[in-house]
Amino acid sequence: MAQTEEVKVLGAWPSPFVMRARIALHLKKVDYEFIVETMNPKSELLLTSNPVHQKIPVLFHNGKPINESLVILQYIDETWTSTHPILPANSYDRAIARFWASYIDDKWFPLLWQFLKPKSDEEKEALLGRVFEGVKLLEEALRTCGKGGKWFGGDAVGYVDIILGSFLGWIRVVDKLWGVKVLDGDKFPSLVEWADAFCEEEEVKSVMPETEKLMEFAIARFGDPAPSK
Amino acid sequence: MAQTEEVKVLGAWPSPFVMRARIALHLKKVDYEFIVETMNPKSELLLTSNPVHQKIPVLFHNGKPINESLVILQYIDETWTSTHPILPANSYDRAIARFWASYIDDKWFPLLWQFLKPKSDEEKEALLGRVFEGVKLLEEALRTCGKGGKWFGGDAVGYVDIILGSFLGWIRVVDKLWGVKVLDGDKFPSLVEWADAFCEEEEVKSVMPETEKLMEFAIARFGDPAPSK
Repeated sequence: MAQTEEVKVLGAWPSPFVMRARIALHLKKVDYEFIVETMNPKSELLLTSNPVHQKIPVLFHNGKPINESLVILQYIDETWTSTHPILPANSYDRAIARFWASYIDDKWFPLLWQFLKPKSDEEKEALLGRVFEGVKLLEEALRTCGKGGKWFGGDAVGYVDIILGSFLGWIRVVDKLWGVKVLDGDKFPSLVEWADAFCEEEEVKSVMPETEKLMEFAIARFGDPAPSK
Repeated sequence: MAQTEEVKVLGAWPSPFVMRARIALHLKKVDYEFIVETMNPKSELLLTSNPVHQKIPVLFHNGKPINESLVILQYIDETWTSTHPILPANSYDRAIARFWASYIDDKWFPLLWQFLKPKSDEEKEALLGRVFEGVKLLEEALRTCGKGGKWFGGDAVGYVDIILGSFLGWIRVVDKLWGVKVLDGDKFPSLVEWADAFCEEEEVKSVMPETEKLMEFAIARFGDPAPSK
């Protein structure tokens, strides 16, 4: 794509939030430079471009920084409008997409993330029950706001697909660490089909981390939460 | 305003989140019916229209429910587009507004809310320090993204004004309960001026709760966290 503007993403490969920005840029066919943030210590660039949260990703568009993955996704959609809409066109459908985005980030994923800490069998079962309640809601959401289609938003990968899809690597890590199956095909057939289709998209493949590599990263960073598995 | 469509808000007067939806509708000059949710027990209407969170506000537009105050604000802005824009027109300014919206709701207000629980003098001072750090960021944000103007987003009350402004009643309750001054005019002159101007807006006046009444509500609901004040 001919492009006079300068687009950069500051991030790291294991971060689902960074992946979101990259997938959106891939879908929009926007060229960008990927700057690797090592995090330890945090780079001067990160500290100055996201002083409030000091978190990745940061998107730079012609030198201006934009923080927070959901803000970045909407910025990308509203800036490069001529290719591949990310949010639905209709304002009600957009509201539904934003609702699920917030549910996934604020309610559901924090539950899954708790699996990176050691827990007893009882705690594991209780937590898994709550995680499954959420997956059930998402399975229903896929069927209803996806209007029976393959994706959450309609005919192509969109906002909710990117947001939930960016967590697939970490879902698989939790599966492996704990010997569970968060996305169980018997219980959640639509969601499992959706997950497979998402990972097959060209724009996703190059940034979706390999499960083994991500698991090594997780254990190196947080320790093995279930060493006796 | 001549209106063939049906707009309703399910809510309660002490809720800052409900106030947001109402202020936005006032700014857009959209007539609506206000349905009082008593919360205890939760109404059938609330349970069926927001089954995931069971929280107010719920906006109904021609029978369709929309949940979550930030989603509702954006829906209102994107649905009634001919009057009073709520989010800025430019995609970068919108990203900045969304960034601060998320900061206020996810980081800053949860700190302030902790003042509704009893705490020791030391805990109070530590918490107040963290609250002030946030207020300082918001004072700077008002000066920079408000471009030196009266409001966060530009020339008129907008997204961030509504989101932070809806908390002014609760900020005053915290001031009274604990004998503090969260919005101290000596430290944060721009923000104090902004708060006064916000409360003077016609669209805000009718829904901004009286501090005494809100404090009575808070004590009845949560108990007096600082009885020895």
